[in-house]
Amino acid sequence: MRKGALTRQTILEHATGMASQVGLEGISIGRLAEDLELSKSGLFAHFQSKEALQIQVLEFAATRFVETVVRPALKAPRGEPRIREAFNRWLSWPKESALPGGCFFVAASVELDDREGPVRERLVQLQKDWLGVLAETVRSAVDEGHFRPDIDAELFAHEMYGVMLAGHHAARLLRDPKAGQRTRAAFESLLSSARREAA
Amino acid sequence: MRKGALTRQTILEHATGMASQVGLEGISIGRLAEDLELSKSGLFAHFQSKEALQIQVLEFAATRFVETVVRPALKAPRGEPRIREAFNRWLSWPKESALPGGCFFVAASVELDDREGPVRERLVQLQKDWLGVLAETVRSAVDEGHFRPDIDAELFAHEMYGVMLAGHHAARLLRDPKAGQRTRAAFESLLSSARREAA
Repeated sequence: MRKGALTRQTILEHATGMASQVGLEGISIGRLAEDLELSKSGLFAHFQSKEALQIQVLEFAATRFVETVVRPALKAPRGEPRIREAFNRWLSWPKESALPGGCFFVAASVELDDREGPVRERLVQLQKDWLGVLAETVRSAVDEGHFRPDIDAELFAHEMYGVMLAGHHAARLLRDPKAGQRTRAAFESLLSSARREAA
Repeated sequence: MRKGALTRQTILEHATGMASQVGLEGISIGRLAEDLELSKSGLFAHFQSKEALQIQVLEFAATRFVETVVRPALKAPRGEPRIREAFNRWLSWPKESALPGGCFFVAASVELDDREGPVRERLVQLQKDWLGVLAETVRSAVDEGHFRPDIDAELFAHEMYGVMLAGHHAARLLRDPKAGQRTRAAFESLLSSARREAA
């Protein structure tokens, strides 16, 4: 990697960690420069504005999510094994992401839901992409005969999102020792409804 | 109401609205004083510290949640009608709360999950209380013969929380026009698993 690219990567890694704790708005160019012993003008040479930096931070976190969760999950056999793999990898993402503050995307979602502009738009697209991958995986499970044919794939993806959000809330805020166990039980119940013949 | 109590109520109403948009950390005594045309020292006479104000804001939002959601739901007949009423009232809470920034508690949960101290502790207790009311309502549905006897009431409450979080995320961040419809479908599916005899 060229020196410029390496510096850029270091800045993004640090800024993403900062955002996972204090939010995207909380990224401070001043503090970044101080922590990394770079000049403020050097930082601005890499990222023309705070907004540009925030978008690059989103991309950085999304790339890591794809590498840690999406790509390995898509290597699992089509259908239910793939959706299980996606679930398992997603569940360990806050840990695997090596970011200090829980799930980066949960924090960003709540932070940005009242705002307008390109940062929000990029986050929305990233979340829709992931929901789309999940729905596509559900459709592959129908093709494989694992799930019932009349299943609403988008609804399943939406419900799976809720299972993860409840688990995140229970683990991070409530520090509920049963958070992991309940997240797994809720997911098994969702799978079981997907398999069942419609009444 | 005495004048002091009325002023206190006005401050809390305004501060809670502010927190629903910019977070509890974002409440600024200076801006509150300016918005309400009060002196900063007058504000400090009501709330000795920013932390004390944050806790009072939590209590204010919780009281409104109890009045708008919990108390009316508990008037519905025991069992499934009561859990349905709780769901319906909870679903319209962000609107009924008359706070500008979506669900106050979702925002506070994500904001405080990395922090320590009395504000976080109070929020955790409030959330546990609500999950406890839901679990108790599930147990009443077992007593009434509406739900299967081996149901895990705490798990149901946890899953119901996930249904609401996914709906909030879809409505607020994604602006998904199907958010309400999917939230209802996910809840019906949860009810249906609760009714079904265990395999």
